[in-house]
Amino acid sequence: MINKLVERIKETNAPVVVGLDPMLSYIPEHIQKKAFDALGETLEGAAEAVFEYNKGIVDAICDIVPAVKPQIAMYEQFGVPGVAAFKRTVDYCHQKGLIVLGDVKRGDIGSTSGAYAAAHLGKVKIGSAQLTPFGEDFATVNPYLGTDGVDPFIKVCAEEKKGIFVLVKTSNPSSGEFQDRLIDGRPLYEWVGEKVAAWGSSLMGESYSYVGAVVGATYPGMGKILREIMPKAYILVPGYGAQGGKAEDLAPFFNPDGLGAIVNSSRGIIAAWKQEKYAGFGGEGYADAARKAAEEMILDINRALEKN
Amino acid sequence: MINKLVERIKETNAPVVVGLDPMLSYIPEHIQKKAFDALGETLEGAAEAVFEYNKGIVDAICDIVPAVKPQIAMYEQFGVPGVAAFKRTVDYCHQKGLIVLGDVKRGDIGSTSGAYAAAHLGKVKIGSAQLTPFGEDFATVNPYLGTDGVDPFIKVCAEEKKGIFVLVKTSNPSSGEFQDRLIDGRPLYEWVGEKVAAWGSSLMGESYSYVGAVVGATYPGMGKILREIMPKAYILVPGYGAQGGKAEDLAPFFNPDGLGAIVNSSRGIIAAWKQEKYAGFGGEGYADAARKAAEEMILDINRALEKN
Repeated sequence: MINKLVERIKETNAPVVVGLDPMLSYIPEHIQKKAFDALGETLEGAAEAVFEYNKGIVDAICDIVPAVKPQIAMYEQFGVPGVAAFKRTVDYCHQKGLIVLGDVKRGDIGSTSGAYAAAHLGKVKIGSAQLTPFGEDFATVNPYLGTDGVDPFIKVCAEEKKGIFVLVKTSNPSSGEFQDRLIDGRPLYEWVGEKVAAWGSSLMGESYSYVGAVVGATYPGMGKILREIMPKAYILVPGYGAQGGKAEDLAPFFNPDGLGAIVNSSRGIIAAWKQEKYAGFGGEGYADAARKAAEEMILDINRALEKN
Repeated sequence: MINKLVERIKETNAPVVVGLDPMLSYIPEHIQKKAFDALGETLEGAAEAVFEYNKGIVDAICDIVPAVKPQIAMYEQFGVPGVAAFKRTVDYCHQKGLIVLGDVKRGDIGSTSGAYAAAHLGKVKIGSAQLTPFGEDFATVNPYLGTDGVDPFIKVCAEEKKGIFVLVKTSNPSSGEFQDRLIDGRPLYEWVGEKVAAWGSSLMGESYSYVGAVVGATYPGMGKILREIMPKAYILVPGYGAQGGKAEDLAPFFNPDGLGAIVNSSRGIIAAWKQEKYAGFGGEGYADAARKAAEEMILDINRALEKN
């Protein structure tokens, strides 16, 4: 799947992933109304609104970006119907040819991590049947529990030719609280980065590993060091746009081949219609606004990378 | 909810939580057959088998233990129907008067953590309705992202009078890979423990905080130190039984008041009927075997605590 991701990034010339992190407040009135009229102000109604909203965005951007990243928390908040909307979103994105990065940040120990890995990237055996529970192409994984917690994901990645992105340095303001603490003179995130490189070394695609990393756009200096520590890890870069990361900060995350990183924007694209800049589109034009914002993001990033 | 947990632990004299972590291989043939006959070898069939199995165990143990801990990975592996079985399990346990610790190990940043917190401990606003997505009483939380990632859970705990258990030192063999690394001469888990104490100080119940910690039974020496660092945090202790933690190792996790810790066993109880020791119960008697194993665990732990 990492080979396919690299190929699609080259084809689209867009090292960009659109975060499908729907909040109800992003969803235009007409979509909410239709869903609530049909299903009431219920978890089912909210989940339906979320799916319809996603569908519009996916239709509008599927030919210009390689991948989407649904954040499962935004679906779990609508309970079981929300999780069903997550699954419908994954399936719809696949129908439209998009690669799906499940932003699930799972991580546990042994058989439990194995169950998460099966849930999101693998298959589950039920009697004589082998079934696909959620079927994302990549998943994000939390490393706090160590190799035990990551190995079951790696095993499933090898079997299914899928991939993971391990949290190394997250984009949030307090990420440094633990991640930046010095251990033998080097910050924790570097030690985690070294593990990512080690975990990934046995699971190589053509030019990059099945095991990638998450490093926030908000910390470009750390991105440069981590790029060197994990030369074969694709880096998923959140934090561009709404969180404050700028295009000119992104160069250190990429390799000299122009590859090696994929930059996420969520709100900045899916809720573009709510920004002053794109207000002309209105709620009815939310999907066109998302496409316009995605096009501008791609231009912005490619321009910044060309300068380097 | 921490007050209620303490009260129920006193009433049952059982500082014990039963982990509802169903694997299909634990589920007796007659339950699997009934579910598969009705729903096929499908995700729905597996989810139904899981719920029926849980129901038997819950019926058998609900009067002798204060709480259960369903591990959501084991439900996610059966996709959307599995997550629905998780929700049904939470509801059924509540009907039976049990406190539910959702072992979800969630953690993200800002609004995303807020969505997880709403999903598992809070309510979600949909139009003019306020709905409960999953409705556990406690949730486990991963600290790798720092205060940003935990604060939204604390906010919901304050509003809803619910609680969290933050991963501090996990029970698995490779938990030390990052958690034991020394920072200014002290292991990372101690720094996380200090944060847990700080996060919890503003959110106190009668004698314990709404913010607890997870510390593995497999590391009693570390448990002793963490007990001192976090005197007001209830400690959820996994790793007893199947993972190798012994009753005599548990004393350091408790305070002199005999409270302060709750010990989990999953497999050792719910799959007791598969152990040689309880084989006489057979598959049909799996729930009675679970009750017997829970009774013995309670005795084992209380005996070890009395010795101290």
